Amino acid sequence: MRATVKILDAYTDRYSIFINPEDAKAAKLHPDDLVKIESGKRSIYGSLVISSFVQPGEVGVSKDVLQLYHLSEGEVVEVVPAGTPESVRYIKKKMHGEKLRKVEIEAIVRDIVDRKLRDIEISSFVTALEINGLDMDEIAALTIAMAETGDMLDIDRKPIMDVHSIGGVPGNKTNILVVPIVAAAGLTIPKTSSRAITSAAGTADVVEVFANVTFSLDEIKRIVEKVGACLVWGGALNLAPADDITIKAERALSIDPTGLMLASIMSKKYAMGSQYVLIDIPTGKGVKVETIDQARALARDFIELGKRLGQYVEVAITYGGQPIGHTVGPALEAREALSALMTGKGPGSLIEKATGLAGILLEMGGVAPPGAGKRMAKEILESGKAWEKMKEIIEAQGGDPNIKPEDIPVGDKTYTFVAPTSGYVTAIHNRAITGIARAAGAPEDKGAGIELYVKVGEKVKEGDPLFTIHAENEARLEQAIVYARRTEPIRIEGMVLQRIGNI
Amino acid sequence: MRATVKILDAYTDRYSIFINPEDAKAAKLHPDDLVKIESGKRSIYGSLVISSFVQPGEVGVSKDVLQLYHLSEGEVVEVVPAGTPESVRYIKKKMHGEKLRKVEIEAIVRDIVDRKLRDIEISSFVTALEINGLDMDEIAALTIAMAETGDMLDIDRKPIMDVHSIGGVPGNKTNILVVPIVAAAGLTIPKTSSRAITSAAGTADVVEVFANVTFSLDEIKRIVEKVGACLVWGGALNLAPADDITIKAERALSIDPTGLMLASIMSKKYAMGSQYVLIDIPTGKGVKVETIDQARALARDFIELGKRLGQYVEVAITYGGQPIGHTVGPALEAREALSALMTGKGPGSLIEKATGLAGILLEMGGVAPPGAGKRMAKEILESGKAWEKMKEIIEAQGGDPNIKPEDIPVGDKTYTFVAPTSGYVTAIHNRAITGIARAAGAPEDKGAGIELYVKVGEKVKEGDPLFTIHAENEARLEQAIVYARRTEPIRIEGMVLQRIGNI
Repeated sequence: MRATVKILDAYTDRYSIFINPEDAKAAKLHPDDLVKIESGKRSIYGSLVISSFVQPGEVGVSKDVLQLYHLSEGEVVEVVPAGTPESVRYIKKKMHGEKLRKVEIEAIVRDIVDRKLRDIEISSFVTALEINGLDMDEIAALTIAMAETGDMLDIDRKPIMDVHSIGGVPGNKTNILVVPIVAAAGLTIPKTSSRAITSAAGTADVVEVFANVTFSLDEIKRIVEKVGACLVWGGALNLAPADDITIKAERALSIDPTGLMLASIMSKKYAMGSQYVLIDIPTGKGVKVETIDQARALARDFIELGKRLGQYVEVAITYGGQPIGHTVGPALEAREALSALMTGKGPGSLIEKATGLAGILLEMGGVAPPGAGKRMAKEILESGKAWEKMKEIIEAQGGDPNIKPEDIPVGDKTYTFVAPTSGYVTAIHNRAITGIARAAGAPEDKGAGIELYVKVGEKVKEGDPLFTIHAENEARLEQAIVYARRTEPIRIEGMVLQRIGNI
Repeated sequence: MRATVKILDAYTDRYSIFINPEDAKAAKLHPDDLVKIESGKRSIYGSLVISSFVQPGEVGVSKDVLQLYHLSEGEVVEVVPAGTPESVRYIKKKMHGEKLRKVEIEAIVRDIVDRKLRDIEISSFVTALEINGLDMDEIAALTIAMAETGDMLDIDRKPIMDVHSIGGVPGNKTNILVVPIVAAAGLTIPKTSSRAITSAAGTADVVEVFANVTFSLDEIKRIVEKVGACLVWGGALNLAPADDITIKAERALSIDPTGLMLASIMSKKYAMGSQYVLIDIPTGKGVKVETIDQARALARDFIELGKRLGQYVEVAITYGGQPIGHTVGPALEAREALSALMTGKGPGSLIEKATGLAGILLEMGGVAPPGAGKRMAKEILESGKAWEKMKEIIEAQGGDPNIKPEDIPVGDKTYTFVAPTSGYVTAIHNRAITGIARAAGAPEDKGAGIELYVKVGEKVKEGDPLFTIHAENEARLEQAIVYARRTEPIRIEGMVLQRIGNI
């Protein structure tokens, strides 16, 4: 049917296309049918809503559609039912345990990006991958297809370095130090990061405290060509958009099929033009990868996949059994990271990890001789060169380069837990720490989070402060306190943590 | 948040719940989040739409919600985010190949019916079943859970008989004969049927040509207690509602996991209180079950499942390699079925199959001695007793018992294909026949369909009519002709079917 476009002020997250009951009856269309809007040479797929919000002869589109396609109010388009996409057959093939060919994987990815495949088909694909897996040929095809169905960056500097930490460790602001150290040594490192999904702060959430993180690819190109580095939010870019769509199903099902995880990470590196990629796999209790054996297997997969993509990949297996540094939450982490860059000093877990990772990158990029990378990284940090570079990055990203860490506001509603007994700290539980910080409002409330005063192995006396919760309002603080009491995040020689009062 | 209900004139098929952008921001809710409306003691789950269609403080609900729950305009309710349902863990268990416990299956089914699980989770469950299957303990638990989460019929007559044909054979109006034959012998048979999903006419579509098929369970109870039988549409009842929901994912993926198929069929029989169930498995090329070996394996599963449910099940493996009788499409099939009941005569494939199945039921129900069922069924049909009973059923279901088959209108736009050569009919392709009838407008256009003049094995002369397409309008007729030319539904000694003109 021909119809006139009407933009509807609704966000449904599913490309809703509204037609009037009368038109639906004539066209034999039913609610949630997959339909196609043909406008010029473009086809826009969406899910049908039958509603009198639009008149006969009109087609309404939810605003989600406009995030990806341009459609004008009053434009005349064709609305037709869309048949079952061919790629459903390939999803079935994977269900039945068969290996997918390159063209089949490409068809699935293209149909995901075009929204021809919806929750049902995407969830089935993700589930089939969880059960039947992908081999390295399939993973490489998936990675390239995911990158090539999105935008790609082409920076006129070589070599392009990149670093990525597999998530899970609270307080992991490490890469905010790594990037300026590496760039200060003359290497190019266009770092994109995610926002928190299940954590208390993604790198992008932390950087956003003192600089903008939302840029177009063209803007990123200009920033990186000027200062050699960036620390931006990848989610604002159209990098490997299939990944942003499949992740919805993965999250709802709380699964993360290995092949898809590899493709998700590496497709974004591939799209950014990265040639030398360092993957940090934090390993320990309460993070994604719990054992060294799992970490090693995953490392081999990353390296092999890199080869297929023409990238040189190295992997650092790091300790992830407790939070990195002393802070968790956007503003608190921003303070800690900037302070470490400014002074060259900070918690050992942060400084050692950051200079370790940066050192590997310096060696990979050929600016440090083998074995000398970490020392060089430390010198760059301690000499203030990393801080100078960071100020350039902040300025290029529209922040104030003269920012002082202590000026960054943090939540002023606080509560401190103290040691119920004397002894050694035997464990700090990552998941509990993350949960408390989120209960306090992180990552949406930038000032919410946790300050830790102790780390595993330290000796404490009864009454010593263990950690302070920061929140931006009393209700959130209360929630976080309740959560902390229930989860006992810090364990002292087997004692149960208890509240013993305000400090 | 507290909010006032506003009924929105929209059908989305996904229980949409609309809130204003301002409220969404305050409650930190995102499009498509699972949210819960609490109204009195009830919880209604739905998917969030963020839209200015509602004001701050209002909550809009799409009309789908009202199909299942009562909510009044202006009612004050609580709207809260809903967490991940516990049953997602059990779906993951099945993904990982583990056997599910009864309580776990019950939780999944309950959450499906409550709409706590949505497309993503349901598709994942269906996919996991397709890959990892269910054992008989799990199938029995699934069947009972599906029945018990819906309405159930309790009829005060014993024994309750039932018959079900696995789909796939075009023109299968058999049960429209079986039901009155069995009821005429004094047995009770409350038959529910489906409408066509992928076929050209479900039994309910055919019966609807001459009687109502949409009744409540109470009405069905009254009809059956009065005349001993019914021929109604199961879809109007709340029988095993989880099945109606999971079928959406199965259809989108074109899969039909065996365990789910068994549970789907038998849960409805269980909910109808059936004690003696005859399953007809048509077998042959172009139907769901293609080989006798598959049919036998499926038969064993039905019988075993029946035992777990306390039902006595028999299975008839029937010939399904070509259409049953000479007609396909609601009105044409209604004519053929009523004519056979009225005269006791008709195409061999229809009369033999109907009396064969009815005979087994007469023996199962104890009114015919072993081996004498079919003869008795034939006597009931030929004596006019079945027609008398059918007239009672038609009257009880609000139809005209004095209906004459030839009075039923059929599509008057027709086109006849003739034999391009002389020879024997070697094949009639089920899928092509169904496709042509659907292209002509069936099942929505009741008068659309096909009249077949030949069956496999018959001798034809060049120019003899093979079949006539009926449609209600020229456009549909044209579509059906194009489809027929492309698919060559009837094969004569290896010759390709061609158009040679109108008759």
